Amino acid sequence: MANPCDAPHYHGGSLSAATKKYPDAPKPWLDLSTGINCVAYPFAAPSRDAYARLPEREGIAALEAAAARCFGLGERAACVAAPGTQALLQTLPRLIPAQKVGVFGFAYAEHARCWALNGAEVFIADTLDDLLAAEVAVIVNPNNPDGRLLGGDALRDLAQRLSTQGKWLIVDEAFVDFLPGASLASMLPLPGVIVLRSFGKVFGLAGLRLGFTLAPEPFARRLRQTLGPWAVSGAAVEIGLQAYGDVDWVRQSAARLAREGETLDAVLREAGCAPVGGTPLFRLVRHDKAPDIFESLCRAGVLVRPFAEKPDWLRFGIPHGDEQFDRLRGALAF
Amino acid sequence: MANPCDAPHYHGGSLSAATKKYPDAPKPWLDLSTGINCVAYPFAAPSRDAYARLPEREGIAALEAAAARCFGLGERAACVAAPGTQALLQTLPRLIPAQKVGVFGFAYAEHARCWALNGAEVFIADTLDDLLAAEVAVIVNPNNPDGRLLGGDALRDLAQRLSTQGKWLIVDEAFVDFLPGASLASMLPLPGVIVLRSFGKVFGLAGLRLGFTLAPEPFARRLRQTLGPWAVSGAAVEIGLQAYGDVDWVRQSAARLAREGETLDAVLREAGCAPVGGTPLFRLVRHDKAPDIFESLCRAGVLVRPFAEKPDWLRFGIPHGDEQFDRLRGALAF
Repeated sequence: MANPCDAPHYHGGSLSAATKKYPDAPKPWLDLSTGINCVAYPFAAPSRDAYARLPEREGIAALEAAAARCFGLGERAACVAAPGTQALLQTLPRLIPAQKVGVFGFAYAEHARCWALNGAEVFIADTLDDLLAAEVAVIVNPNNPDGRLLGGDALRDLAQRLSTQGKWLIVDEAFVDFLPGASLASMLPLPGVIVLRSFGKVFGLAGLRLGFTLAPEPFARRLRQTLGPWAVSGAAVEIGLQAYGDVDWVRQSAARLAREGETLDAVLREAGCAPVGGTPLFRLVRHDKAPDIFESLCRAGVLVRPFAEKPDWLRFGIPHGDEQFDRLRGALAF
Repeated sequence: MANPCDAPHYHGGSLSAATKKYPDAPKPWLDLSTGINCVAYPFAAPSRDAYARLPEREGIAALEAAAARCFGLGERAACVAAPGTQALLQTLPRLIPAQKVGVFGFAYAEHARCWALNGAEVFIADTLDDLLAAEVAVIVNPNNPDGRLLGGDALRDLAQRLSTQGKWLIVDEAFVDFLPGASLASMLPLPGVIVLRSFGKVFGLAGLRLGFTLAPEPFARRLRQTLGPWAVSGAAVEIGLQAYGDVDWVRQSAARLAREGETLDAVLREAGCAPVGGTPLFRLVRHDKAPDIFESLCRAGVLVRPFAEKPDWLRFGIPHGDEQFDRLRGALAF
């Protein structure tokens, strides 16, 4: 099967590519190819000043404080805003000159790409013990795309073993937000531990470009210097402040996603595609005919996420509302 | 005099700092401390998708093409979008491992800071010939804050001398937009030459975070890899596309700035502060009593740009409209 998404690092969300490849698919497409909340936070429009003026240090500090409160971040740990988690992935290798980097299992491919780009040898670790051979260990938790979730104690033990050897542990918590208690945030700072958090996935605002690093203060200071002043946009400051302060919205979103996630599970089971993993924001399906399912869905205008290296895997974002579920049900009835 | 802006790299625009230091100053402040066009481009509000979805490669490519057209960029040169010129300043040292970097004259301080942060020895060159001792030569053109302007021929000659030795020339054209014919863009690509352009200053939208690198294609490819996908926000893509397509607005803005720049010259002359340099977006004043003038202006709620290393210099942005000019006149009548 010709996969329209066979670019070396296809990320989901490329409707343009899919639309070109399947010009006859019904429009608009139902895009389930990302793990982004498809109900966006209903923000108030940014002020004129948010666009016109450079964001001030005080505004960025207020945003970081609001995010830290929402994360339940330990008091002595630092929270640093950046223009998206991806920008942080690109920046970390610059701050930690490592020759050997271990990524735990099959995970979000950008980690390996960014370290390799900086000359590091990157290996995939099958066990936590294997990660001890690395100078920098990277764990996506919960993991994308299979949802594997490690507990805080296991991570803390690993961090301790690594840090006594002067090594680092990076925990990418991009999909942790709707999993209460699963984040390391409240245990921070931990020596040698860097946690990444994403704004756009939870709040359905990936185009805003906002993400955070939680780290010990000395590392945060170096990171701030490397990101420079005005790293995030004025709109990101204002909208982020609103969103992180809106505990009710996050709670309601979690409940809705739990409900609609269960509906998705049922729909997938009915179609013989019972999920084998996932998080509140996506489900993973393994199926021998995954490439055919992918193509059938595309012909019906439904985009999900294939994986070049795992041809029998497909990741489904959580649809919202009867219309989207009906459409997915119809598209899966091949 | 206690300067409220004595942070190591004070950039102007920190109204919070000024407001704290001068709590009794009339509000709102008149902020002339930046070189940002104080009349913002009247953009249409970004779409819902601009916030919700990751920007697609096609959208970013369209933005880069529109910017390149507006700059008059040579056909074989590449144009790479980034979240602000500052993000590029922070990134370039990573791509060009230089030990010795020369900055031409007293210029925007972030160049020196970013190279030094990456371990380079940075010197200030008094002549173009002195720059030949550097592996990377940096020229801000027109220069910020004095407006010194080098011609294209001189820059091209220098670039040739540098590139034959495998050295680089970075030309920061942050303030070139309203100076027709002063940009190198149409001569590009030139071997070893990297040109930086700013979006926020011309269009009065600094909070959007958008800037560009113009460079030979092989360098652009490496830069894209280092910035990663989704480096700019969805709003930056949409608003940038609108703005760079609006030739009329740019022309009208240039005319207005020329007119109001002349008014500013007259106001400053009347106050005994005749400008000694500048660009269409700011004027530079040298005055023995600059620190006192700065403080008087602050007490009147007018913020201009002081320079810790040049205590007799002040930079004034161009005010807009009678009310702002009257206020500045009043504030200067000490």
